[in-house]
Amino acid sequence: MGEGPMGVVILGSTGSIGRQAVEVIAGMPERLRAVALGAARDGRRLLEQVRRLRPEAVALEDPDAGRAWRPALEREGVRVLVGPGSAEELATWPGAERVLVAITGAAGLRPTLAALRAGRDVALANKESLVAAGALVTAQAAAAGVRLLPVDSEHSALFQCLAGRSPAEVERLILTASGGPFRGWRPEALRDVTPEQAVRHPNWSMGAKISVDCATLMNKGLEVIEAHWLFGLPASRIGVVVHPQSVVHGLVELRDGAMVAVLARPDMRQPIQYALCYPERGPRLVDRLDLAAVGKLTFEEPDTRTFPCLALAYRALETGGTAPAVLNAANEEAVAAFLAGRLPFPGIAETVAAVLDRHRARPVTGLDDVLEADAWAREEARAQMAGPPRTAVGPGGAASPPA
Amino acid sequence: MGEGPMGVVILGSTGSIGRQAVEVIAGMPERLRAVALGAARDGRRLLEQVRRLRPEAVALEDPDAGRAWRPALEREGVRVLVGPGSAEELATWPGAERVLVAITGAAGLRPTLAALRAGRDVALANKESLVAAGALVTAQAAAAGVRLLPVDSEHSALFQCLAGRSPAEVERLILTASGGPFRGWRPEALRDVTPEQAVRHPNWSMGAKISVDCATLMNKGLEVIEAHWLFGLPASRIGVVVHPQSVVHGLVELRDGAMVAVLARPDMRQPIQYALCYPERGPRLVDRLDLAAVGKLTFEEPDTRTFPCLALAYRALETGGTAPAVLNAANEEAVAAFLAGRLPFPGIAETVAAVLDRHRARPVTGLDDVLEADAWAREEARAQMAGPPRTAVGPGGAASPPA
Repeated sequence: MGEGPMGVVILGSTGSIGRQAVEVIAGMPERLRAVALGAARDGRRLLEQVRRLRPEAVALEDPDAGRAWRPALEREGVRVLVGPGSAEELATWPGAERVLVAITGAAGLRPTLAALRAGRDVALANKESLVAAGALVTAQAAAAGVRLLPVDSEHSALFQCLAGRSPAEVERLILTASGGPFRGWRPEALRDVTPEQAVRHPNWSMGAKISVDCATLMNKGLEVIEAHWLFGLPASRIGVVVHPQSVVHGLVELRDGAMVAVLARPDMRQPIQYALCYPERGPRLVDRLDLAAVGKLTFEEPDTRTFPCLALAYRALETGGTAPAVLNAANEEAVAAFLAGRLPFPGIAETVAAVLDRHRARPVTGLDDVLEADAWAREEARAQMAGPPRTAVGPGGAASPPA
Repeated sequence: MGEGPMGVVILGSTGSIGRQAVEVIAGMPERLRAVALGAARDGRRLLEQVRRLRPEAVALEDPDAGRAWRPALEREGVRVLVGPGSAEELATWPGAERVLVAITGAAGLRPTLAALRAGRDVALANKESLVAAGALVTAQAAAAGVRLLPVDSEHSALFQCLAGRSPAEVERLILTASGGPFRGWRPEALRDVTPEQAVRHPNWSMGAKISVDCATLMNKGLEVIEAHWLFGLPASRIGVVVHPQSVVHGLVELRDGAMVAVLARPDMRQPIQYALCYPERGPRLVDRLDLAAVGKLTFEEPDTRTFPCLALAYRALETGGTAPAVLNAANEEAVAAFLAGRLPFPGIAETVAAVLDRHRARPVTGLDDVLEADAWAREEARAQMAGPPRTAVGPGGAASPPA
């Protein structure tokens, strides 16, 4: 980075991670420069970000929002792309070395692949693209000779723990989980949980979808799959421990029994900054962690009886092929239904389990396999939530009726 | 280590660290081979170790023990050195690449320097040699182009945390302290502490001297000085946090606020093995650390009012020159007096403080400076313990009477 700041594209700049990335970039103009910003529909915030970071281009995926905000954005002298596919176009914008993919859900997959194909390092906050299409994403990164830099705090921690160590040293990865807002609850008590309760995360400020995933422990399950693809270890060597304080973000057990951990205050700016500055480290943006002030760090086994989503994710990873894509798509549909008040909280796990039961996994050899599995799983999930169990199966479905 | 096992010399093989090193070496004959073993006087245990590891040579520093055990040892076909200086001779024994210096106290200094001069990597369990003569030891290692490998669990942890990181990433080192058996006691309650109480350490099985040092927190103070020399950071960037479970052994705060930690069960075989095998890692000899089973890790500020030795060590490090050697020597004398029932527990800190008060520090330019300061401090400490405060001063003493 000797010759001026590194060009960065932020996709999903108006979301929770994107907004924090804007803070990080604004705080170190000598090192980082925002070349382009992409958002789904929040034109007002995008305009503010344009005034702050002065990028060359912006995108709004939503056509209505694009029409509404294009004039104001263009008055700032910025190039404006509008409509579906505009994020993918920004992903290959000239002059950027690194693309932060902070889009939520399976929608992050195409821009991620596009950025990698174009030879950009990808700072990946979108876990669904690795969950659904880890084989494709990692193969694309390897083929292009570029880096996949994790932004999730847990994977960033593992990535930092692994820095400078040979694979032969590594025995096991351990992801920490806060346990979410319902840790310690009995299964019956979860029947009446509201979306408002589920999105109130104890430690992190995050979007609604990921907050619900934290409450079901599906988020940790998706992270186990993500860790598998990022670090190349099988499910049997990736563990989860519940750690409600969210101070230890990840641990690596080494061959001789020692463990390396990364600790930090639960503030996403640190992992975002690390992914944008890697292999260097930027200046401290977050308060120093004072362990004596924290006082106590606790650890417990995850309760997979009350929170079956974690076990479902392990099952999908062990099954392999299209199973993780199906897990992810069914979960997205179920979480959307829960947030809309159409599904009780335990229905999320029940829906995902039912869809996985009906799925016959196939190898992932191309994007079509993933998209087909994704579409099938969404349709299955919607049908599952709409009525009683069915026996008809779509592509990739089970030949036998569900148990 | 492709061409057969690495030759290792253990100095202090019958002590606590030495015995565990024998276990480590016996457990991995394809990687490590004991070439020579040195002990102070425990001929019986040395004979057992000879039968187990079949070294080429042994040494007994104590002439009486040497006379008594020479015949039995020679019947095992091993070369036997006897008398003062024999450890130093073993330190340069041919065929060894690495020397583990596990001798307690200032007696470890000469063999450490001899091993470094002879081009051997030194696995250093003897913290006093770095405390008293850090400038000489580190200069000698640099001149000979060999490694100083820490064996203390805390420094081994820091060394592991720092592996693969550039100095520019590092903000601060943090050593954990168990707090010892008297953590939480009021100063007055320490008046009647017995040696039996003081050596009963909650987490570690160690020798008597170091156990008392843990109880006074002087051990942590010596470790702060040791860390200064091993890792090149000033006192202001080396912190201590009390962590009674002794699971987190050391933490490195990085520039951006993230912290890297090394965790392990409190079992010295792990750091001993790491120092002997570095840069590789040996197989797991200790039980896996199960954080959920541990349940809780706690942290608190050290209580330097009740345990003034920690603050005294910081003061000696900040003073520099011969001050740390004086701190260490006065402490050794005071601990010996306490263990012999001749000094109350709080008298240890009082004695060290009084000797430091009377000392005028000088630069350390050679071994003589250290030895002179050491001898002066021992004499001062003994005089201090024998009677009321004195005004006469020896070499390096203060010109003005003590406060």
